[in-house]
Amino acid sequence: MNASGLKDLIKAARGAIPVDLLIRGVNYLNLFTGEIYKASIGVFGDRIAYVVEGSPEGLKARQVYDGEQLYAIPGLIDSHLHIESSMLTPPRFAEAVLPRGVTTIAIDPHEIANVLGEKGVKYMLDSSRDLPLKVYVLAPTCVPSLPGVETSGAEIDAEAIRRMLAWDRVIGLAEVMDFSGVVNLDERMIRIIEAGRSMGVVIDGHTFLKGLDLNAYIAAGMEADHENFSFEDALEKLRLGMLIKLRTPYLLNVEELVKGLKSLKDPIGYLLVTDDILPDNLRRDGHLDNVVRRFIEAGLDPLHAIRAATIYPALHLRLYDRGIISPGKLADIVLIDDLEKFNVKMVFADGRLVAKDGRLVEKIPARVFPDDAKDTVRVRGLELDDFRIRAPAGRERVRVRVIELLAPAKDLPDAERFAQSILTRFSIMELPVEDGYLKLTDDLAIIAVVERHGKTGQISKGLLKNSGLRAGAVASTIAHDSHNLIVLGRRSEDMLMAAREVIGLRGGIAVVENGKVIASLALPVAGLMSEEPLEKVADEFEKVRLALRRIGLKDHPYSPPLFFLALPVIPEARITDKGLYDVVNQRLVGLFAE
Amino acid sequence: MNASGLKDLIKAARGAIPVDLLIRGVNYLNLFTGEIYKASIGVFGDRIAYVVEGSPEGLKARQVYDGEQLYAIPGLIDSHLHIESSMLTPPRFAEAVLPRGVTTIAIDPHEIANVLGEKGVKYMLDSSRDLPLKVYVLAPTCVPSLPGVETSGAEIDAEAIRRMLAWDRVIGLAEVMDFSGVVNLDERMIRIIEAGRSMGVVIDGHTFLKGLDLNAYIAAGMEADHENFSFEDALEKLRLGMLIKLRTPYLLNVEELVKGLKSLKDPIGYLLVTDDILPDNLRRDGHLDNVVRRFIEAGLDPLHAIRAATIYPALHLRLYDRGIISPGKLADIVLIDDLEKFNVKMVFADGRLVAKDGRLVEKIPARVFPDDAKDTVRVRGLELDDFRIRAPAGRERVRVRVIELLAPAKDLPDAERFAQSILTRFSIMELPVEDGYLKLTDDLAIIAVVERHGKTGQISKGLLKNSGLRAGAVASTIAHDSHNLIVLGRRSEDMLMAAREVIGLRGGIAVVENGKVIASLALPVAGLMSEEPLEKVADEFEKVRLALRRIGLKDHPYSPPLFFLALPVIPEARITDKGLYDVVNQRLVGLFAE
Repeated sequence: MNASGLKDLIKAARGAIPVDLLIRGVNYLNLFTGEIYKASIGVFGDRIAYVVEGSPEGLKARQVYDGEQLYAIPGLIDSHLHIESSMLTPPRFAEAVLPRGVTTIAIDPHEIANVLGEKGVKYMLDSSRDLPLKVYVLAPTCVPSLPGVETSGAEIDAEAIRRMLAWDRVIGLAEVMDFSGVVNLDERMIRIIEAGRSMGVVIDGHTFLKGLDLNAYIAAGMEADHENFSFEDALEKLRLGMLIKLRTPYLLNVEELVKGLKSLKDPIGYLLVTDDILPDNLRRDGHLDNVVRRFIEAGLDPLHAIRAATIYPALHLRLYDRGIISPGKLADIVLIDDLEKFNVKMVFADGRLVAKDGRLVEKIPARVFPDDAKDTVRVRGLELDDFRIRAPAGRERVRVRVIELLAPAKDLPDAERFAQSILTRFSIMELPVEDGYLKLTDDLAIIAVVERHGKTGQISKGLLKNSGLRAGAVASTIAHDSHNLIVLGRRSEDMLMAAREVIGLRGGIAVVENGKVIASLALPVAGLMSEEPLEKVADEFEKVRLALRRIGLKDHPYSPPLFFLALPVIPEARITDKGLYDVVNQRLVGLFAE
Repeated sequence: MNASGLKDLIKAARGAIPVDLLIRGVNYLNLFTGEIYKASIGVFGDRIAYVVEGSPEGLKARQVYDGEQLYAIPGLIDSHLHIESSMLTPPRFAEAVLPRGVTTIAIDPHEIANVLGEKGVKYMLDSSRDLPLKVYVLAPTCVPSLPGVETSGAEIDAEAIRRMLAWDRVIGLAEVMDFSGVVNLDERMIRIIEAGRSMGVVIDGHTFLKGLDLNAYIAAGMEADHENFSFEDALEKLRLGMLIKLRTPYLLNVEELVKGLKSLKDPIGYLLVTDDILPDNLRRDGHLDNVVRRFIEAGLDPLHAIRAATIYPALHLRLYDRGIISPGKLADIVLIDDLEKFNVKMVFADGRLVAKDGRLVEKIPARVFPDDAKDTVRVRGLELDDFRIRAPAGRERVRVRVIELLAPAKDLPDAERFAQSILTRFSIMELPVEDGYLKLTDDLAIIAVVERHGKTGQISKGLLKNSGLRAGAVASTIAHDSHNLIVLGRRSEDMLMAAREVIGLRGGIAVVENGKVIASLALPVAGLMSEEPLEKVADEFEKVRLALRRIGLKDHPYSPPLFFLALPVIPEARITDKGLYDVVNQRLVGLFAE
């Protein structure tokens, strides 16, 4: 705002000139005083000009909205999420979440960064500029998640971090997932943290450490953490002055967390975030609004739940111009039906009505990604032999190291089941050989990871036990964090077909059964995102989920476990494009256990 | 901290190398969770390395302090004060407040800036560098308080503000006192605010506005305000999202404020500050520790009072590295006897023990101010005629406009009496003329303001009614905000003597009775501060106070009203070096009311 804009704002606030927009007689939840009272909110340009009590006569406005039946709260602020999980590009994501009342987000674009590096981060910024959804970036710090163990499309080092921090809207460092690297003084991680520390920006954390190791991780500068699965985890961090970010109810026992918070005397330091919300969940349940709603349902006072999704994340992100409906702040205002039900009715962003009754009323510019962002699945010449495993010459039986999915305890609620659903271990099996190839038992599937960034072209193969797969195959370019092409199946023909389908789509997911593609979702942007709207992406992803279940694969509301099989930081047994990886002992291991 | 320092801190936090200092088994008030439990705090270098529960064996430390009988809280942070009110230089002030547990302050050096301008601000920074008391500066925005109405030593414009904001440790704009200028779009104020807004720094407020005008002032960017004399004042601002700074109990009815705060449901947004503490009060009652103590005594929960003097001011000032005792934060730790009594027992700053049982244990560097800072009372050639008022020629009686001090209601508590004790109005009196000069009635004194910055040398004269002065005189170079030489007396001989004494001291205060100086305090630094320690300055200032009462002047625990008679923003009648000033009608007026 220049001096002239400032003068006009002052005039409007004094009532000397009309405000652009007046929300009359709304039920106003005051985040500072905790009071609820009737108020009228005047907006001038993109700022709040005044908040006056009641609904006095004589306020002049170009446009008036009746707020009598509604409650006003600030636009929701999500301080930790990956847009890529929605499978939408930033403009499409904005379309999807603005009607949910989300008006500011701080994204960690580490999925696209694993594919396209700094350039991918730049593309996320370019495509999200000047949207009513304000998009800030925390620079991804752990790309790839484990250097040397997997082939990512790009690597991000301390120099790249410094360059990104000089860009507009890059306001900090994203979750420092290599917590072990930090406390063990890994040079790469120390330099990356130093880059953030020297510029005084916010540094976000991600850790499962405890005790003195957790102290060390926090001492290194990590301010916040979202890896809180139980109140006990969260409390240890909170006690150490770390902000805790409580996220999607698909992952958490919200009731337990709320009970824990309420057992404390007036705690502060907790925020609500989403982290990952898949497109079907986003369409059905909402976004940060759903997290707030679920915490309120579980008994958290609406005042506290709303502070945790507005003013506190604003302070955490050093965005002092928002997070509260007060004079001079950004006019991001959400009108909801009720503080308990928490249904979003109207959303104002930058002083304009952008959504009403769940529908956008302002067109979001459809910014497409450049061509090179859609040419990231660089795989060619796949053949059947890439998806079957040849035994050592002359053997009739062979001992192999298989990745075994652990069956989660049956009586766990969904929220607690996910972490268990992706845990694995290595076990040894002896398999027969047929025509020179391994012959699978019924509980096994072949899993292949195809380097897809056009670097090595390497294909690693392994065996997965207890996936549930009966027949058919699935291929996906979503495969955290390097997002190589992961292919799972029981027959090489099916696997080849699924892989080729995904390559043809320039990225995405395809499910094959009985020799045909029964569901697919094109994700051409970095192999991760679609430029289509949520409606279409959610429809297709739902079909993919159904197809996955149809061929027998286990699923979880938070995410299909498939997406995590190549992530070499989750215990104990993984597969990357470089081969099988023993997470506990931190080394690549062979398939044949001779 | 460089990478090597960071690595050592991580090692110390993990227990891989010994910490420098360990406070064992202290009662730890956790500001995030609200819990109190036994903990041991490890400090490495100037940082907290770890906080572990209980008092476990095996923690290695170079030095160990037993905390069993004490409570640990973070160093106190004062976000609004003028060091000059203590009459001490920054190093002497540090000596005085460190034993009180104050470890970070954000000063508004607007007193020295009125005398020496930007250079004065620079001197405050120079003399306060690298002290265990961390001194930050908010750039003074209203120097002089009313341009054109008084002669200050310097003026500060938007360009000067921009220059100062580029200096190290200048982190925002200090109280924007010209609130009327802001809402009336005064160009100077708009440009100054713009300077702060464009750099995204904190802007502090100072206002008595209400309603839409208050909205406009806040909309312009003012984040916080300390002019809260009643809960009602404070509540209006808090409701508008303005941080309220509650200050010294000499000015406030603390009980009423606490009762008001407690009537709200879990309010946030209030801070504790000191603003002005005179040396005798500082020595007797303490500093921000006394404000915290008084709020606790009045019933504010210690958790809330302490948050309001530690973590919340840290966030307000964007000082993310302090305000809480947690790993990685600055090791500013205060040990107190009890959360209710709040007596400071030990103070650690930057990881070193700096005070114990109210006494400094570390030497503070005695940085003297440069000579030009001590040559600011540029007055010469005063004579008797400067302190008596010649009547228009040939008149026997003459009607004059006198400044009348309003007698505060007798039954008011001290805290509410101050504001009233400095209120004045003009009244008209008819006085006899003797030998060509006005003859005073018993209720009158002559008040003269001598320009002392070496600019105009102008002397203005007026009459003060109801000061209580019986005989003698007082002169002072503390005279808000331009700090010209103010002289009050009934006889020109006494006034001349007092003025000459102050000039001889190179600034300060002198009281004359029966033709001799009965008390004086030398304040050679800008005519405002002494380079002597608190003990000496408080002794002498106490004697000055006694002497003022002895000659009949009214006093107030917060400050002698004398210091405010030349401040042309306090209603209704003032006198500056340019003459009598009608605050309500905002114009200079004549002494003779013919």
